[in-house]
Amino acid sequence: MKIFVINCGSSSLKYKVFEMETENVLAEGIIERIGIANSFLKYENNKGQELKIEAEIKTHKAGIQLLIENLLAAEHGVLESMDQIKAVGHRVAHGGEKFDSSILLNEEILAEVEAMSDLAPLHTPANLMGIRVCQELMPQTPQVGVFDTSFHQTMPEKAYLYALPYEYYKKYGVRRYGFHGTSHGYVAQKAAELLDQDLEELKIITCHLGNGASMAAVKNGKSIDTSMGFTPLEGLVMGTRCGDIDPAIVPFIMEKEDLKPAEIDNILNKKSGLAGASGVSSDMRDIEKEAEAGNEQAELALEIFNYRVKKYIGAYAAVMGGVDAVVFTAGIGENAIETRTEILKGLEYLGIEIDEQANNCRGEEKIISSADAKTKVMVIPTNEELVIARDTKNIVS
Amino acid sequence: MKIFVINCGSSSLKYKVFEMETENVLAEGIIERIGIANSFLKYENNKGQELKIEAEIKTHKAGIQLLIENLLAAEHGVLESMDQIKAVGHRVAHGGEKFDSSILLNEEILAEVEAMSDLAPLHTPANLMGIRVCQELMPQTPQVGVFDTSFHQTMPEKAYLYALPYEYYKKYGVRRYGFHGTSHGYVAQKAAELLDQDLEELKIITCHLGNGASMAAVKNGKSIDTSMGFTPLEGLVMGTRCGDIDPAIVPFIMEKEDLKPAEIDNILNKKSGLAGASGVSSDMRDIEKEAEAGNEQAELALEIFNYRVKKYIGAYAAVMGGVDAVVFTAGIGENAIETRTEILKGLEYLGIEIDEQANNCRGEEKIISSADAKTKVMVIPTNEELVIARDTKNIVS
Repeated sequence: MKIFVINCGSSSLKYKVFEMETENVLAEGIIERIGIANSFLKYENNKGQELKIEAEIKTHKAGIQLLIENLLAAEHGVLESMDQIKAVGHRVAHGGEKFDSSILLNEEILAEVEAMSDLAPLHTPANLMGIRVCQELMPQTPQVGVFDTSFHQTMPEKAYLYALPYEYYKKYGVRRYGFHGTSHGYVAQKAAELLDQDLEELKIITCHLGNGASMAAVKNGKSIDTSMGFTPLEGLVMGTRCGDIDPAIVPFIMEKEDLKPAEIDNILNKKSGLAGASGVSSDMRDIEKEAEAGNEQAELALEIFNYRVKKYIGAYAAVMGGVDAVVFTAGIGENAIETRTEILKGLEYLGIEIDEQANNCRGEEKIISSADAKTKVMVIPTNEELVIARDTKNIVS
Repeated sequence: MKIFVINCGSSSLKYKVFEMETENVLAEGIIERIGIANSFLKYENNKGQELKIEAEIKTHKAGIQLLIENLLAAEHGVLESMDQIKAVGHRVAHGGEKFDSSILLNEEILAEVEAMSDLAPLHTPANLMGIRVCQELMPQTPQVGVFDTSFHQTMPEKAYLYALPYEYYKKYGVRRYGFHGTSHGYVAQKAAELLDQDLEELKIITCHLGNGASMAAVKNGKSIDTSMGFTPLEGLVMGTRCGDIDPAIVPFIMEKEDLKPAEIDNILNKKSGLAGASGVSSDMRDIEKEAEAGNEQAELALEIFNYRVKKYIGAYAAVMGGVDAVVFTAGIGENAIETRTEILKGLEYLGIEIDEQANNCRGEEKIISSADAKTKVMVIPTNEELVIARDTKNIVS
């Protein structure tokens, strides 16, 4: 069975085509700058052929049409007919409290997703557009929605409710939702497999550290807390997002700088985080280079990033009553060797002890704690698209 | 040596007169509703005499004059002359980055405190007013400022800097300051005494849980992190303050409810916390009663409160590399037996084990962990006024 996975943004669209018997990727790539000048399609197939097709891609529909042409192309295509695609799996940013698992999309469900656009105003409309275009171009093919929030719907009330006037929860749905759910769920499951233990019996802290970053406390296979909140702004320091701050800073800065709500929101989401603190870049690699060259502010930004992860490891050990495994994933988590070392320093009281030689790895599935450490630490490359493909397969099977 | 301690608010003033040889309180009380109808002075001396004097108290000066009359009164007074007061110690809410310890106040220092009013716009002007009035009424008596923030000035940069645009720190002093410093410092010292160990060698988590609530990680006698931040809004759930939330909620609610910065600030500070979440009261005792009577929302508010403290215990253990002692203080910390039990449940992995019988206490200095628990837990009544008196004595001696 072949599954098409789509992650549709407002001006870009990532895709993968899976052969589910082997879980191999037949083709993958991205369409960028949709509706903007210099748009292009990147395409790579499992025969090692790579293309970058520059074309005027005015709409998501035009982009997907161009993609389909290439999937069917004689030379570099991977499909004979689009009928071979048995279902399309869509990443959907926000499922609110309604969707605690992936679901076959129909008009009723789409209306419910649309009604929650408010909760992810930048993402949900784009996700819906991707779904609509696929419905139009592949009217016979089932479409499945896989929500970034679903995995965290198991959180107890005490973890997801804020101490705000209760009416904000009732009226506007203001609560912790959490994101990166497919990633946290995937690496937690993988961790159990790697340890050859039952996920149902483990206390795992998953650290998804990428340009967006979040952590989760996964107890007995269920997310019981996560660092992102009502939006993906809360929690860890990210590329350009501030993470946790004193909420009183928001009105304070608005008054000082004469900013509107949307303007301060933009600063907290786009001008803060590693970029704001370092004054260098939002990219960990650039900041590491600067720090090595003696830039103290860059060094400090790294320290703040690591310190915040360390605090969450402690907090999540507390809410689970201990921890059996800590998992690092995503761009930074999989690749930043020194970052992992710094984060874990001083956590020996939790039974954490890193094997520096084992830790000297990038992007591979590996246990990096010393052989006799009570708490296992590992690197597990995430694969959100595979989770979407699997969920999609399960739902249409 | 007799020391006069004053905590001056905008419409109220708390005071204590100490005999420093014995550290006994000679007289104490409060002046309330200054400049408002029905103002009064409460006065209690060490002979057990109590008075409530209702009078028109239009200004802080009038209030302190009335207080002085009573301190000197033949029947219930405790002084023969105000010259017996060797110094006045003032609680000052905010010392910014400038004041890392208590200080003898002079015009230059007062100008510096005033220049930082921005950081505590509700408190600093009132504190300064109390100081000015005392200078006027006791021109020969030294005045000492004891800052709520000083104890936390030992925090490292990674703990006090937010991942915001760095210019906000430079231009406006936006960073974590922390508050309740005199309390955290006092109970940490007391804890070391109670354990008969050297404060310099201990990792202590201090939980000041009152209507305002904060925690600190005190390592080797120094505060290395604390839950309140730029303002006293951040961190734990409090009577009416929300504590930690996703900062994106602030602009979201402002848009939804059409609120100005000062209005949302007011909601986060005055309408949230236990009051907002429970819908019952800002007072833990009222909420406990409601919860016992079956009010689920009240029960939930308690759970959120406890859960947040538990998370910080875990986080602070992580940043200190373990924990030797956890201290509970202030109204809730000293008195709420079940709250302490709930907070500590599941923390056995930290070596915490509570002795339920020992824990059945209110407002007394006591170790409440079981005899062989690795990590000691204790209740220590705080005494912020005594710290102010001691600092004041030390500075003028």
